[in-house]
Amino acid sequence: MPNPTAAMIVIGDEILSGRTRDANMYYLAGELTQAGIDLREVRVVSDDRGAIIAAVQAVSAAYDHVFTSGGIGPTHDDITADCIAAAFSKEIDVRDDARQILERHYAATGTALNAARLRMARIPDDAVLIDNPVSSAPGFTLENVHVMAGVPSVFKAMVESLLPTLTGGAPLVSETLRIDRGEGDIAGPLGALAAEYPMLSMGSYPFQKKSGKYGSNVVIRGSDAALVHKVVQELAASFQK
Amino acid sequence: MPNPTAAMIVIGDEILSGRTRDANMYYLAGELTQAGIDLREVRVVSDDRGAIIAAVQAVSAAYDHVFTSGGIGPTHDDITADCIAAAFSKEIDVRDDARQILERHYAATGTALNAARLRMARIPDDAVLIDNPVSSAPGFTLENVHVMAGVPSVFKAMVESLLPTLTGGAPLVSETLRIDRGEGDIAGPLGALAAEYPMLSMGSYPFQKKSGKYGSNVVIRGSDAALVHKVVQELAASFQK
Repeated sequence: MPNPTAAMIVIGDEILSGRTRDANMYYLAGELTQAGIDLREVRVVSDDRGAIIAAVQAVSAAYDHVFTSGGIGPTHDDITADCIAAAFSKEIDVRDDARQILERHYAATGTALNAARLRMARIPDDAVLIDNPVSSAPGFTLENVHVMAGVPSVFKAMVESLLPTLTGGAPLVSETLRIDRGEGDIAGPLGALAAEYPMLSMGSYPFQKKSGKYGSNVVIRGSDAALVHKVVQELAASFQK
Repeated sequence: MPNPTAAMIVIGDEILSGRTRDANMYYLAGELTQAGIDLREVRVVSDDRGAIIAAVQAVSAAYDHVFTSGGIGPTHDDITADCIAAAFSKEIDVRDDARQILERHYAATGTALNAARLRMARIPDDAVLIDNPVSSAPGFTLENVHVMAGVPSVFKAMVESLLPTLTGGAPLVSETLRIDRGEGDIAGPLGALAAEYPMLSMGSYPFQKKSGKYGSNVVIRGSDAALVHKVVQELAASFQK
């Protein structure tokens, strides 16, 4: 059986103007090759409704899978979700499942879920959410199009969530542990756990609040939910000594 | 008057497989922004005749300029020139002007101009050559499509040759000086000249032959041909003391 085929659409004026160097194409290309999916074409398009819809319709008809990167944040130029809905003639609005994910995340971090952030819960009808263990706002799959964030750490985490569901591999579960310490304190214990449990993937995503408070969200992922939970508990315990 | 519009086509399986990280898109995007040309779309396509022709025809009809990167080397999978000819229904064969450039270059470096290398002189009828001061094999412009190499140093040099002709700026002339010394010896004198003549651009492209002989081709470019020549003579003289 031949490999499934794929295209990628990178969405964002900042790439076309040369302000930002895209990192997601190189990452996705490598992951798809490893997963046995043939990436046949990439298109980089601007934050333009007509351009996004035309690109989505063209490549979703031509390939088995389409992966998009960018344009699903809280600002006015983040129009990807609405364009994907339009490309498939679907309704789109704030959806309860996505809203609940954002409510939990922002309640935990003490941040207001304002109208701008709530835009990130706009999900087309019939779409299936893609887990975002880094910053919570979900991606989604509609038909054969997988819609993900442009921020490289979030894009990477979403691809890790998504790929096992496409290739028939065991789905990954993840747990996130917020640690209010600098990464210099976290690196030692996390490195030791990573060496002890090579079957798990562990990432650290540092943050600093305007208040000056800083810390890191550590995401641990694997196909064995019980093991993921056990290791998260171990990591948490190592900071309570 | 609105800015001219442009698209880029990156050609190469090595990008889509994740083996190579493309560098030319980011470089071209920045240069076009500086030149006042709006890059609206990029497509990355495989070394596939149908895919290349379809992409060229689609974007050359939609935008003022098209820039391509990759697929003009000596190997069997370098099919870009033939595809561009086909996209515009032009004949293509080894052309005398391009062959003479290669003959001069390979005679100077003591390398055989074999059948594989001669492929790089295949240029469509009516195309205008683009200067390659780094490794000599030229790019070309046919209609509104500018065909350039994928190797980043060569792509960059070709873009520098081409852009002034598109924006109405003074065309650049270049001279190349081969220096049989290591870059560590060249850096001092070259840096001093670069500081003294900020209106010139100076690049150093090191080589090492299978014989073990090494050195660097230093390319000096500017809009004042007499000044370029004078500075090349100065640089050469500094190595004959």
